[in-house]
Amino acid sequence: MMVGCENSKKSDSGSNEDKSLSDDIINLDQGDPTAFQEYWMKKKDRCTVVIPAWDLMSYFSDTKNVCWFLEPELEKAIKALHGAIGNAATEERYIVVGTGSSQLCQAALFALSSLSEVKPVSIVAAVPYYSTYVEEASYLQSTLYKWEGDARTFDKKGPYIELVTSPNNPDGIMREPVVNRREGGKVIHDLAYYWPHYTPITRRQDHDLMLFTFSKITGHAGSRIGWALVKDIEVAKKMVHYLTINSIGVSKESQTRATTILNELTKTCRTQSESFFEYGYEKMKSRWERLREVVESGDAFTLPNYPQDFCNFFGKTLSTSPAFAWLGYKEERDLGSLLKEKKVLTRGGDRCGCNKKYVRVSMLSRDDDFDVFLQRLATIKDLKCVEP
Amino acid sequence: MMVGCENSKKSDSGSNEDKSLSDDIINLDQGDPTAFQEYWMKKKDRCTVVIPAWDLMSYFSDTKNVCWFLEPELEKAIKALHGAIGNAATEERYIVVGTGSSQLCQAALFALSSLSEVKPVSIVAAVPYYSTYVEEASYLQSTLYKWEGDARTFDKKGPYIELVTSPNNPDGIMREPVVNRREGGKVIHDLAYYWPHYTPITRRQDHDLMLFTFSKITGHAGSRIGWALVKDIEVAKKMVHYLTINSIGVSKESQTRATTILNELTKTCRTQSESFFEYGYEKMKSRWERLREVVESGDAFTLPNYPQDFCNFFGKTLSTSPAFAWLGYKEERDLGSLLKEKKVLTRGGDRCGCNKKYVRVSMLSRDDDFDVFLQRLATIKDLKCVEP
Repeated sequence: MMVGCENSKKSDSGSNEDKSLSDDIINLDQGDPTAFQEYWMKKKDRCTVVIPAWDLMSYFSDTKNVCWFLEPELEKAIKALHGAIGNAATEERYIVVGTGSSQLCQAALFALSSLSEVKPVSIVAAVPYYSTYVEEASYLQSTLYKWEGDARTFDKKGPYIELVTSPNNPDGIMREPVVNRREGGKVIHDLAYYWPHYTPITRRQDHDLMLFTFSKITGHAGSRIGWALVKDIEVAKKMVHYLTINSIGVSKESQTRATTILNELTKTCRTQSESFFEYGYEKMKSRWERLREVVESGDAFTLPNYPQDFCNFFGKTLSTSPAFAWLGYKEERDLGSLLKEKKVLTRGGDRCGCNKKYVRVSMLSRDDDFDVFLQRLATIKDLKCVEP
Repeated sequence: MMVGCENSKKSDSGSNEDKSLSDDIINLDQGDPTAFQEYWMKKKDRCTVVIPAWDLMSYFSDTKNVCWFLEPELEKAIKALHGAIGNAATEERYIVVGTGSSQLCQAALFALSSLSEVKPVSIVAAVPYYSTYVEEASYLQSTLYKWEGDARTFDKKGPYIELVTSPNNPDGIMREPVVNRREGGKVIHDLAYYWPHYTPITRRQDHDLMLFTFSKITGHAGSRIGWALVKDIEVAKKMVHYLTINSIGVSKESQTRATTILNELTKTCRTQSESFFEYGYEKMKSRWERLREVVESGDAFTLPNYPQDFCNFFGKTLSTSPAFAWLGYKEERDLGSLLKEKKVLTRGGDRCGCNKKYVRVSMLSRDDDFDVFLQRLATIKDLKCVEP
């Protein structure tokens, strides 16, 4: 995530109509999940946390736990939620909490490569991949691991780590590993979006190393809470070692708040009128319908098609409504630049290892920004007909 | 900071007398600053933070700020506190917030070495140094920088970064850089303990890159909040770049709580009965007097002597009461092991680049642990006379 001082601007201007004509930049580059704030507004005081000054002062949460800075109540809340949703196995696993799942992904790269006899370990992900992986694997120029790009064309010998994001960021497709060598391969399963408001829950994921993030479930990105479910104690210990050196643990205030909010999700997930996942599913579905309407009313853009699938959580066959739209342009043209001219910031497909005719568009913005985005997209679609 | 599952144990046992005879391990290895909790207990509801579920959801705090994830109210609180205490200049500086000052130290290593034409940049610190620096500079085996040990014996050519901790961790001495080459040298000033309850404030520090941490001021280690005061915008930008990739910013809940508590420090710092710094100064002074009493009643141990100095904040000449005691043994013996036999965990001098006859002992434990530590120390002192 790259943020410049002038890249985006919070708008206080009036109606949507005014905004679409104004100079306001709409930032749909980062996936800031502010779409869900309205749900939490309606909760009023219900999930408010109150923290007195004398509380949560120590570095330690539970010195008997491998992850000594994990608040025991958060551990329980995470297990209860996965149990209620049925999206991931938590038994016989260590839970490692992180300052968001970015930090945990780096902790996992550190752990798996430190435990490898041969270094550097190759890091790969199938195109299109989450652009931040490239930065995470490269910025410190570590000799423990090395970014090697697209998993599909990867043919280097030696140990490797494949990052599998499912549903995938940026394109929303459910994924499996692609390298699949018999030896020397490790997989980090990034399941940030494997929740029922984005995609049907078709199976209980049961991998060795799975990453989740609070941000993308409920929209609480500012809390910077993520967790890893880790089978191998040696991997868990090394990840904790990374987090100990990197930041001596994780904010206790954020852990406390995440506990309260995750418990609320679990408690209300079977009550249709209250369930966050019911709300989130309807919200995302409606946004996708509106986006597809704009795209299909012209002939300029492409969007992936997703198969319907039976969702074990909702108990019915449902469509997929990813957190990002992987928008393509039918002609060979830099779509990111074209949208930027319309003051809509998106992430260029080149950053995801792809062609610039694709962009990743956040579907999790506030309502008014999403409305303006659709309006501006419609003007490009119309313009296209008269452009050379 | 290394923590094992069985390294330490929270005690719920009864009186101090019972505890000193029990098997409880007293962990004074980490500097967990729980000593100050009693002060915050007395505040009752005064600095309680209340966070509704809909608040603090975005990644962003202020997109116009170089440090886009820094809450504007925290920035104001930091500036106000430094202004009131007079320990550091904040004008014409960028404030970068981090998940504790450990993460900021790594952000600074990344920034300064990324901006260096020649890499790897040598990282040095004068012995005895904060042991965690070694881990921070080494664990990722980065090719950007390389740990080169003691600054006093450093003679390698090329660019370097000197870490100057003042007052020093582990030995409490006020420090200046020691390498002082005319070119190619950068300094990170770690001022975690430059607060009036630990040491007289003799000047307003005015360096290019200064680090502070919430943990060691008020004891709120669990919040993981630190900040850097940075003169050069390019360095600040690179640090923010590191924090963006490393953890996409810093917990908003912790920032909010730190704001409330720092504002309280500023507001009450001139009211003797309420001032945290008055309270902290008396607390630390009393602990040091009791420790010196035990040490001086025998002939086994050494402690550094600190000059008295005029404190601009308190307006009088005062002694120094560091957050760690740099305890030495007069004979050549592994003092850490000796104390471990007495079930007192400390950090061995070898980890700080020194002799094992020294240990670093946290002076910031809870009262009962500190009491037991003194009792056990007294038994070693007595035993020594009959030992070979």
